[in-house]
Formats: sequence, C-alpha cells, structure tokens
Amino acid sequence: MDSLYVIKIGGNIIDDEQKLSSFLQLFAKLEGKKILIHGGGKLATKLAEKMGVEQTMVDGRRITDAETLKIVTMVYAGAINKNIVAQLQANGCNATGISGADGNAILAHKRINASVEYGFVGDVDKVNGGFISSILNQEIAVVVAPITHDQKGQLLNTNADTIAQEIAKELSSNYNVELIYSFEKSGVLLDANDDSTVIPSITPAYYQQLKNEQKIFAGMIPKLDNAFTALNSGVKKVIIGKAEELNDLITGTKGTSLTNE
Amino acid sequence: MDSLYVIKIGGNIIDDEQKLSSFLQLFAKLEGKKILIHGGGKLATKLAEKMGVEQTMVDGRRITDAETLKIVTMVYAGAINKNIVAQLQANGCNATGISGADGNAILAHKRINASVEYGFVGDVDKVNGGFISSILNQEIAVVVAPITHDQKGQLLNTNADTIAQEIAKELSSNYNVELIYSFEKSGVLLDANDDSTVIPSITPAYYQQLKNEQKIFAGMIPKLDNAFTALNSGVKKVIIGKAEELNDLITGTKGTSLTNE
Repeated sequence: MDSLYVIKIGGNIIDDEQKLSSFLQLFAKLEGKKILIHGGGKLATKLAEKMGVEQTMVDGRRITDAETLKIVTMVYAGAINKNIVAQLQANGCNATGISGADGNAILAHKRINASVEYGFVGDVDKVNGGFISSILNQEIAVVVAPITHDQKGQLLNTNADTIAQEIAKELSSNYNVELIYSFEKSGVLLDANDDSTVIPSITPAYYQQLKNEQKIFAGMIPKLDNAFTALNSGVKKVIIGKAEELNDLITGTKGTSLTNE
Repeated sequence: MDSLYVIKIGGNIIDDEQKLSSFLQLFAKLEGKKILIHGGGKLATKLAEKMGVEQTMVDGRRITDAETLKIVTMVYAGAINKNIVAQLQANGCNATGISGADGNAILAHKRINASVEYGFVGDVDKVNGGFISSILNQEIAVVVAPITHDQKGQLLNTNADTIAQEIAKELSSNYNVELIYSFEKSGVLLDANDDSTVIPSITPAYYQQLKNEQKIFAGMIPKLDNAFTALNSGVKKVIIGKAEELNDLITGTKGTSLTNE
C-alpha cells in the first residue's frame, strides 16, 4: 500500500502569513500522497467583526447561525482554501481544494444537542474515500476546508480535527496512513508550560499510566483519546507537534508519536 | 465522442434564490457530462458594502484591489460555489466546485493595461483539460468559480464568460461541446426591448448581414464575436437564452443557436 500523510494545521499557522508560507513550502516538498486539513477560526471572527455579526463561543465551539455559516463558508472554503492551493501551486505542488460538499466528500448531519443549540454545526457520518483517492491517485494533494453538507442542500460547519481523523480512518483501508496534528506546541508535554518536556512516544499502556498519574494536561485528553481511536481503526501512526517542524515530525526526531505497539 | 454541456449562468440567476434553485433542478436532471460556470458580482458588491470596501467599475469591469480580491474569492469560490454544489448534491447530482487554482485548472496572468489599472484581474493563458476531464469522467459535474491563478501564488479575478469560452474550446478536442450562455433575455433579439423577437438561429453569413444592417444590439456584439470564435475553435454549438428555459435551449425550441453551417 502507498503511504498517505493526513495533516491538520492549527489556527496559529493559518493566522500568520509567514508561518503559513514556511509550512506550505515544507508540505509542498513532502514526497508521496498527502492531504491537508485547515481551519481558520480567527480570520472568520475578524470578518464577522467587520460585518457586525456577533459571534458566540461555547467551550471553544462556535455557535453557527445562518449568517455565521455564510462567513465560515466564505473564509474557510473561499479565502483560506484557495490561497493555500495557489501557494502550493507556486511551490510546484499540484493541489486541489475541497469542502465536504464537493464530490460528496464528507456527509454530515446537523448536531442535535439538548443543552446547547450549536446551529449549523455538523457531525460527520461518512467520508467518501473513492472521490478523495481519485484526486490523490493523480498525484494531486487535497486541501480540505472544514465545511461539510447533509446531502439535503445544507452546508455545515465542522470541527477540523474530527475531519482529519475521519479522513485518516476511512483512507486507512487503501493507504498506510500517518495522521499528523500540528499546533503551537512541540508535542505532548509533561509540563504544559515547558516546551522541552515533549514525550517522544506514547503507547496505549503508557497513555493509561500518564493519565493515572495525572501527568497529561486535561485539554490534551480529548485529542489523545481521538488519536488512539484512529489508531484502533487502522491508522498506522499519529504524530502531534509543531507545523514548522513537519520534516522532523515525519522522521520522528521531533514531536510525539502515538503507536499501538 | 461524449457530449459535454458547458453552461454559464448569469448574475441575475445567482442573485435570486428562487430562480437559482429552479435552474439547479434543471441542471441536475440534465443527462451526460456537464460544467457550470458562475459569477456573482452583485453579492460581492453587497459584501464589500458591509465591509466598507469601496468598489470601482470601469466599463462594467470591477477594479480588483487586494481587499476586493479577498472579497470576490470568498464570495465566488466560497459562498456561491459551495452553495451551488450542496444544492446539486441535494438534487441527486454529484458535483464538485473548483477555482482555476484547483488542480491547476485555469492558468492566467495579471492584466497589463496602459489606460486602466484593473488590479488583480487575470486573462486566461491555459485550461488544464486533463484535470477537468478526470472529474467529468467520474460522472461528477464541475462547478467553476471565476477565480484563476498565475502559478506564482497569486489568485486573479477573471471574467466568467471568458472562462466558459476557454473551457469549451479546450475540451472540444475530447468532447462534442455545446456552450450555453444563459442570461436575463430570451436569446439574441432583433429588438432589444421586445423579448418576442428572438432570432432562433444565426450562421456566420447571417451574423454579418445583421451587423451590416445594424440590427444587432451593440452590447451583444462582443458576446457574439466570442461565440463565433469558439465555434471556429471546435465547439459544436453555442446557445444563448434564458436559464429558466434550459431544457428548451438544449432541444433548440427556445433561445438563439449559433452554428457554423
């Protein structure tokens, strides 16, 4: 099976033109099949401010009313997605940008939650691996904006971490998938305030031990739980670290690798 | 060779939710391979107003400064493109939306004009027929937003009529292409103010005669000149008429057909 990198880049990269440009140069040079998933929350918030559309966040999640859905669709699937694709093309990497509506790539349903009305927020039902593979197999990188659809004409705002995980899981039957979560920290840290305390490698047994000893920053636990779920669903490796260190994350010299062995 | 419909929808359809929805139902049912090219100028102007970005038009063309480029990228490639794709999916028509940057589909260069500084406006150099065909051949309709790129990382605002024509020309070596320009009128009219004076069919000789007799509305002449250029470049037929009458345009019972015979 061919290798496939599924890489999620965090908001801190998207918001910083310089960092984004450096990251995209590294991504463009990466050999083999690859998928990039991006968010863009801060730029959406900025546009909402300019347009006078008030934004409400609950537990870090955006309440997505009809006007906010238009804004995130414009910012994620329009401005950010097309700029990333154009920059990759400039770096000699053929790429195509998609949302979950394109090629019916990601089907979702509107979240129903008794306690919080999230609005037009979608939970993923199905990733269409065939369509995504048909692009990858032309040696074209796929750049995914975190907008899905319900096949009834409704676009939905969807968490980019979740999309990365669902794509990685679905494609692991056809590729050796490495799922990379890049964010502002150097990896999973023993001390959340000390970037030098990166844990190089975590197995399920060690993860259990770290949790028992309460050595894992609480905010990382959902991310890590998801990562181990992905590993149990066929993803070969999950790596967590800094986007600027992409090459070192892949060779394993930096960041945190999660494996089942 | 397979048939291929290349259909440009005019701004009056995009701006009217009801009309757009009716048109997309017709487009979804259309059998065979198909490409839809859209603009969206009025929605871009509305967003610019909300954001306080002044818009300047010269001869109906938008002067595209950096801020305006962001706006048209968000509106055309984001909001409009993804909403059209989601609606087509809801109508049982698999579709994928692209800009000219995606899959390197449409290469352009920034327009240099001694008299007018258009800003980030692109003139088309090359359509990548292979990439577009790879989608069509999966029986997926292609929905094109009029944003191109220069392969140096710059997105460019590009005339949607021109994009339709260039795509039709490029793909005519692999498909029997019918190029359809839909707009607010019922076709090419003998009397611009009377929708019942549609000319059903125009050959090059008849076009020359109509021009000599000054029976063609001046505003239509560039459109028709382009249409005959497309016919001379391999496009089988050009049809001009109302989007709401798509089926009748294709069967030839409404609108104006241009042919070389």
